[in-house]
Parts: sequence; structure tokens; C-alpha cells
Amino acid sequence: MTAKQIDVNSDVGESFGAWTMGADEALMPYLTSASIACGWHGGDPQVMRRTVRLARMHGVRVGAHPGYPDLLGFGRRPMALSPGEARDYILYQIGALYAFAKAEGLTLQHVKPHGALYHVAVSDRSLSQGIAEAIAEVDPTLILVAFPGSELVKAGQEAGLRVAAEGFGDRAYNEDGRLVSRSIPGALLTDPDAVADQVLLMVEGKVRAITGRMIPITVDTVCLHGDTPGAPAIAKRLRERLALAGVETMPLEKLLVGQVS
Amino acid sequence: MTAKQIDVNSDVGESFGAWTMGADEALMPYLTSASIACGWHGGDPQVMRRTVRLARMHGVRVGAHPGYPDLLGFGRRPMALSPGEARDYILYQIGALYAFAKAEGLTLQHVKPHGALYHVAVSDRSLSQGIAEAIAEVDPTLILVAFPGSELVKAGQEAGLRVAAEGFGDRAYNEDGRLVSRSIPGALLTDPDAVADQVLLMVEGKVRAITGRMIPITVDTVCLHGDTPGAPAIAKRLRERLALAGVETMPLEKLLVGQVS
Amino acid sequence: MTAKQIDVNSDVGESFGAWTMGADEALMPYLTSASIACGWHGGDPQVMRRTVRLARMHGVRVGAHPGYPDLLGFGRRPMALSPGEARDYILYQIGALYAFAKAEGLTLQHVKPHGALYHVAVSDRSLSQGIAEAIAEVDPTLILVAFPGSELVKAGQEAGLRVAAEGFGDRAYNEDGRLVSRSIPGALLTDPDAVADQVLLMVEGKVRAITGRMIPITVDTVCLHGDTPGAPAIAKRLRERLALAGVETMPLEKLLVGQVS
Amino acid sequence: MTAKQIDVNSDVGESFGAWTMGADEALMPYLTSASIACGWHGGDPQVMRRTVRLARMHGVRVGAHPGYPDLLGFGRRPMALSPGEARDYILYQIGALYAFAKAEGLTLQHVKPHGALYHVAVSDRSLSQGIAEAIAEVDPTLILVAFPGSELVKAGQEAGLRVAAEGFGDRAYNEDGRLVSRSIPGALLTDPDAVADQVLLMVEGKVRAITGRMIPITVDTVCLHGDTPGAPAIAKRLRERLALAGVETMPLEKLLVGQVS
Repeated sequence: MTAKQIDVNSDVGESFGAWTMGADEALMPYLTSASIACGWHGGDPQVMRRTVRLARMHGVRVGAHPGYPDLLGFGRRPMALSPGEARDYILYQIGALYAFAKAEGLTLQHVKPHGALYHVAVSDRSLSQGIAEAIAEVDPTLILVAFPGSELVKAGQEAGLRVAAEGFGDRAYNEDGRLVSRSIPGALLTDPDAVADQVLLMVEGKVRAITGRMIPITVDTVCLHGDTPGAPAIAKRLRERLALAGVETMPLEKLLVGQVS
Repeated sequence: MTAKQIDVNSDVGESFGAWTMGADEALMPYLTSASIACGWHGGDPQVMRRTVRLARMHGVRVGAHPGYPDLLGFGRRPMALSPGEARDYILYQIGALYAFAKAEGLTLQHVKPHGALYHVAVSDRSLSQGIAEAIAEVDPTLILVAFPGSELVKAGQEAGLRVAAEGFGDRAYNEDGRLVSRSIPGALLTDPDAVADQVLLMVEGKVRAITGRMIPITVDTVCLHGDTPGAPAIAKRLRERLALAGVETMPLEKLLVGQVS
Repeated sequence: MTAKQIDVNSDVGESFGAWTMGADEALMPYLTSASIACGWHGGDPQVMRRTVRLARMHGVRVGAHPGYPDLLGFGRRPMALSPGEARDYILYQIGALYAFAKAEGLTLQHVKPHGALYHVAVSDRSLSQGIAEAIAEVDPTLILVAFPGSELVKAGQEAGLRVAAEGFGDRAYNEDGRLVSRSIPGALLTDPDAVADQVLLMVEGKVRAITGRMIPITVDTVCLHGDTPGAPAIAKRLRERLALAGVETMPLEKLLVGQVS
Repeated sequence: MTAKQIDVNSDVGESFGAWTMGADEALMPYLTSASIACGWHGGDPQVMRRTVRLARMHGVRVGAHPGYPDLLGFGRRPMALSPGEARDYILYQIGALYAFAKAEGLTLQHVKPHGALYHVAVSDRSLSQGIAEAIAEVDPTLILVAFPGSELVKAGQEAGLRVAAEGFGDRAYNEDGRLVSRSIPGALLTDPDAVADQVLLMVEGKVRAITGRMIPITVDTVCLHGDTPGAPAIAKRLRERLALAGVETMPLEKLLVGQVS
């Protein structure tokens, strides 16, 4: 019997210039992996530096969180990119974050597309291939974080990458395994214990859909959105509950160590 | 007696999106080093990809050509950046180009600041320190290309970097070793043989100022501006004349091989 | 019997910063209306100033040519904007061009969406409504230039705007009245007399589809793309042929003078 | 004896995309004039729309608050613009805001440069002339808000504009009438009554410098920075204290009604 293990990740470093977003300093202590914005949908070079340092201080592994070239829309609006454009845009962003990790004595652990790029890739094979290709080109040991069952998972595997399946602790699920749209009441879980309950189920390989029905799901990492109200408190409670339940938390790199890429 | 050697560099990859700048394909065959724009003052991820590939095809070594965050002004307008801002902006751009070099099987050879960033750094120590620090952080084996006698040379040396002194083949000099301002008639040399004459003098450790007086100058690399009218023809003629004169052309990495960093 | 009349328009002012696009100075003398980029997909404040001046010098009426917030993609990539976003983005761009027209003693005549914004609006009612609403808000006397039969035409009419139907002199048509995709051979007409032939047919209310079949079309204005190779020569020849055929050329404002809005 | 009168202004509409700045909704009720960011240093089309509406709801007059093309630096870093560049960049921004005011049934009252553009203009005549020229070109009835005694005041007057002298309620002054640098302790006043005391002195034509010495100052409008901690409470207290002291608050347009432009 395998020990129960999970990675806890969040999107951080999304402040930009004079504008602050999220509560990275309060949230970081409860993460094992941090997905850092790379200046396109959010973040900027000085924010990237600060966020990498913050992660290092708390022993959190860092990864790139590349997005669409749409700062005004925070990367949340689908854009019709060719696979080659997507590949090169992502490569650019990974490289930029690589430099800050290098400067601060860290290495990159993973790549997780942001916002609409992540969501569009779920069902878009050629976009997913562009994303996977960028990662394989710059460093094939990087882990691709993707939605379970998505085209992105397949593209990552075809490209020879290690792929981590991601669950969402603070989002409700439909019976088909997709997330409930944010526009629907109940889509967002903000009660810390409700989030912890959901993650503990995920660790067991299942999740209760918004309909009440239990569905199977396999996840390596669970995402807590940094902009969910009370995110640090949710993260803190989740870590306590995971510890109480004897679930080990560890960064993806360690968790996937046995996975053949 | 040392063999006479020089590196021939140019600023390339400055097209952006639907807009073309320069004649990179015609110019590249005559270079030994290429300074590639990184998307801030010019260039974009797809242009970076194409330019790195073009350099590889011609056996030209590549370096980063980071600029101010001023696409609208092509990085030619001084901006009041703090040294920390400059450092992080440059680190970001180097990282981005690193990824394309890596993807295409190349390594970065050098870093040369672009436009106003280069010119302001000539006499601004703290800006120069920010630039040098970024390079040292990401890869201390990168060569810093700088104007002879500038604060940037000093900052690079203090940071333990190899520094290459740069001459300008297509620009007239003042007696104090500075470039004649572009706004003054005669500032720009466009006759291929006049450029070649000037570079051949530089190889001998001297250059004729616009006043006619010969002044001493030591350069490791000579820059041909890609946007000078007829740049490819100038570059072609320069390479012919250098070959006729028995001057070896080679990339900085090879030329500085004996230099202790 | 009505006199045969047509407006000749082109997209101009699409240079950006240090980058030049098109041959506006050579093309402008042959236009009656100019659609000027507003700094989002192309153009910048200084280019807008120069282009408005150039239009004034040649007695050409000016209009706004607003685009997506995608300079990198030249506004040619569909983006998922809400109608409210589209409305406000277009309003912003019209206002910006209004100021340059005012400064140079001109008034705005029309608005024509650029690139993917124009094409997506053809079949997207809510986007078209956002566009029409912006125009009606800032100045309901502005003419909306739109593809015949499109949702944009309908939205413009519903908003009480005068709408000008646009034909494309340098693009081949399908039998359904849509343009042949640029990726298909023969989609672009570059022979000046072929373009003139097509426009002369349009003036007669018809156009020959790429299949050879004649289809009906009604246009108030004909567009010549400024970036079609040889655009100025095409425009010159078109004006000569229109004059020879006794077709009056005049700006939309004059041509639609009798149209009840 | 003239009745004592003053305009109370603040910089608003500086949120951008997904990022919020300031507390515009809480602050607006206490203003008589609002300077609205135009999308370059902050603000975006949807924020401009919301802010214009908010001003209209509270009967607050609106003006343009144009800034440098430096979103990343929030327009606070001096850039070496030519006067022609400054003129066209400001004209663009005024036009953009004009459109939103028009759409919401308002007219623009004033223009106040933002951040480093405002501060550099204090002692830069040619930049100030560029700014004044833009305003005169688009609408010579717009009021220019400027620092007393600055080159901007002179340039505005030479251009035939009405100029409003601006005092800062929440900033300490040096004996020479300049503001104490933000980096010096005591530069920022955050106590509501201290701010009110200072503004009441200004209404009397004087202000106490940080040294304790009283110096003369004449102001038409007093600025409260929207990003000063507790700005809404400061503004509320200021309005109460002004009312208690019998000082009339009114927008610049009304206050300067007798001023010959």
C-alpha cells in the first residue's frame, strides 16, 4: 500500500507594477509548489524576483505559470493563437522565470499554463502540443501540470514529459469531472473545512460532484487559487487537516520521483 | 607578435509582430556574433526563434540585446530606472533569449545592452552595476559587450565578468573617443570601404576622429548597425577587406579565450 | 437614373514607433476616405498625427480604424471580448483619433473595425452591437463601414447609424458573397486592371465570384488594402479607370448624404 | 472682499484590468473635480467608463490625467520625451477620455499631467509647452491644472489656457514652495485634521513649511492623493472643516469663471 501523498500548489506572483494582487506572503508558507506568473498576464520582473525569493525562504518549489499576451484581460480571454505562437510565447516566459530561479539559486520544477490558456488547452490538441513542445525544448525534466484527462495531459505524455494531474480544492466539480463554471452558485468553495474535505477525498481518488454523486479522480497536486477570499486561511486549514489525516505533503518533484518520463 | 583578430557583431532580431526591421537574412552571413533583441524594445518570441535559427545556420554566436521597457520608443529614450529595476529587467530578457538558444541547441555567448540603456550606462555607474549584476547572476561566463572606457566596462570587471570592448565601424568618433552624435553630418559612415578602412585602423589600435586626428582605441568587437542603409553590403565588404588584410574574424568567445575573467 | 458613385478607402497609419508599414504617402492621393489605426493593433500618437495631416493635405476624409488590444498579433487574432469590453475599447480608440482630427482641423467621418474585429463581427451579433453602441455614444453622425449582409450592418442600423456597405477591390469572392480565404490561391488580386475591372462591376451592383459566376453585391465604398503589393499603383489605376468610366469618386459623407439615418 | 473658495481634486480611475487601486467609490463623494487616468500609466477603457459614471453620479467634474507610456512604472519614472512626443501622447489620452465623458453625457473640465510628467514639467519649459499645446489643440477651454510658479503654469498661460494653481493637502512643503520629497519622514500628512488645517491655511494664501516657517501660496484647487492611506476619511474631514470655516467648495470651472483666458 502506497503512502498517501499530495502536492499543494497555488498561482502566485500576479501583482504588476504598482498594483497588488493576492496575499502571497501569507499563502506561501502553506504551499509545496508555487506557480509564478511570468509578466504576460500578470507579474513583472521585480515581482518575479520577490516571489522566487519568498518561495525559497519557505522551501517551496517553483514553476512557471505562463499566460496569454493579454495583461489587460489577465490572460482570461481565449485568443486564437497558432500552436507555433503558443509554443514560442510559453518558451519565452519559461526562460524569463528560469533566469530569476537561477539568480536565486533555485531550479524550475514545473510549468502550468494560466487562465484561458489552461482551459482552452483542455480540449485543444494542437495548442496542447505547442505548450508541451515548448517545455520539452527548454528542459524535458520539467513537470507539466494539467487537468486530468485533458488534451494537455496527452500532449505532455507524447512529448515525453512527466505530467502531474491537478485537482482544485476550492472549486466544485460536475459529474463529468469538469469544473463547475464560476458563474454558477456554489462553484467556489470558501469554507476552509469544506476545501479540506474535498482534498481529502481527492487523496482517496474521488470527489463529490456538485450533484452529490461521488466520482473518481486521480490527482498529484491540488490547487488553491490565491485570489479566493481567505486563501491563506484555507491553505493553513488544509495543511492541518492533511497532517491530521496522515497525508504527506511534498513538492511534485519528490512526489513523482518514481514516475518514468 | 599576436595575430590580428576581431569579432564582427550586429544588432538583429528587431522586427516585431507584423513589422519588419533590418535585413537580418542578408546580414547574418557576414557576422561572427549576433546581438538579439529580447522583446522589450523590439523583437518578439517568434522573431527571437527565427533569429536564433538564422544565426545557428550561419555558425554565428548569439547574445542577448536587452533594452528599456519602451517598445513605442524602440528603447532609445532614457528612462529613470533604479539599478534594481534595470537588473531585473535585463535578467528577464536574458532568460527569455536563453530559452530560445536552448531550444535551438545553442548557448548564449554575450550580453550587450541596447540603445539608450547602453548609452546611459556609459557614464552611470549604478545602472552599469545593475546590468553587470544581472549577467553575473544568470551566468557569469557570459561576456559583457561595452563601450571602451565606460562605467559599464568597470562594472563588468568588478562583477568578475569578461568584458569585450566594442568599436563602431559605421560611426564617426570625436577626439575624446566618444561617438559623434547622429544629428551631426558625417556621424554615420555608409561607404563600405570607408567602414572597412576604419575597422582596419581599429584592429591596429587606433581610429581617425572626425577632426582628422588619430586617436588610440582598443576593441575586441566591431559593431555594424543593422539599420544603417546598405548594412549587408557594408558587412560583406568589411569581411572581404579583413580577409585581404589577414585579420582573423572570430566570435568573442574564441577571441577572449585567454582572458582571465 | 442615379449617377454611379463610389468611395475609395484604405487602411492607413499602421506604422508603429520605429517600424514602418504600408506606403501611406504614395497611396493617400488616390483615396477619398482613410481608415486610420488608433494605436491598439497598429499606429501610435505620432503616426496618427502624421496620417491625419497627410489625409488633410489630399482632401481625404478620415475615420477611425479600431482594433483588438493585440499589437503583437496586429489585431488579426480573434479574442473573446465581452460586448461591453468591445464597446469601451472601440470608444477609447475613436476618442483618441477624434483628438488628432480636431487638432488638425478635421472631423471624423466614419468608423471601420480592423482585422479580426471586423471579421468576427460579421457573424457575431453581440460584438456588433457593442461596436455600434460605441459609435452611437460618441457621435451618432459617424458612418459605420461594414461588410454587406453582416451582423454589423444590422447592429449599425438598429443603433440608428448610417451604414456604408464595403466591397473589396483586391480580394476574390465566393459565390455566397464572402471573401475567399487569403490562404487559397487567387484570393488576392494584385493586377491593377483586374482590380479596376472588379470595382467597375461592383459599381454596377455585381461581382464575379472566383468560380466565374456573377453574383449581386451593393457597395458604397471599395477597400484597397494598403499592404497589398503595389497598392499605390493599383489605387492610381483604379482612379483612372473609374474616371474613364464616368464613375464619380467621393467620400462616404457626401455619397450617403441622402441616406436617412 | 471675495468669498473664500476652493476646488477639491483627486487622481482617480487608476485601477487596471484585474488590479484595483485606490478607493474611488468612497472618495468620490467628497471631491469637486476628478482627474481620471487615461490608460497609459493606469486606468483602462472599462475603468474610465466606471469612473466617469461615478463622477457623474456625485456631480463631480471630470478631467484627463494623462501620463507617460509606462504602465509598468505607473508613470512615475521620468522618460526623455521630445516635446512633440509629449504633445501627441497627451492629445491621445485627452481624446480617449473625451469619448467616455461624451458617452456619459459629460464634458471635460480640465487636464492635469500625472506623476513624473507633472513633476518634470515643473522645470522643463519645452515639455510644458508640448503639454499646453496638446490641450489648446483639442479644446482651448480646458483648464490646465499645474504646480504654482512652474514652467507648466507659464506654458499654459502663453498658450492662452486658463490655469489652475494646485496645492497639496496631504504633502508637506519646503520653504521654497516645493513639495518635501516622499522619501523624507513627515513628507506625507495622513491625519485628517492636519490636512484640513493645511488646506484652510492655503485658502488664506499661505502654508506652513516643514521647517515651521509660514510661506505664501495661492491655490485654486487642492489635491488629495487617492492612494494616501485613509484618503476617503481625510477627504470627508476636509469637506466638513471647509464647510465649518465657511469656505465654499466648487469645481474649477465655476471657480475660475471670471478668469480671462
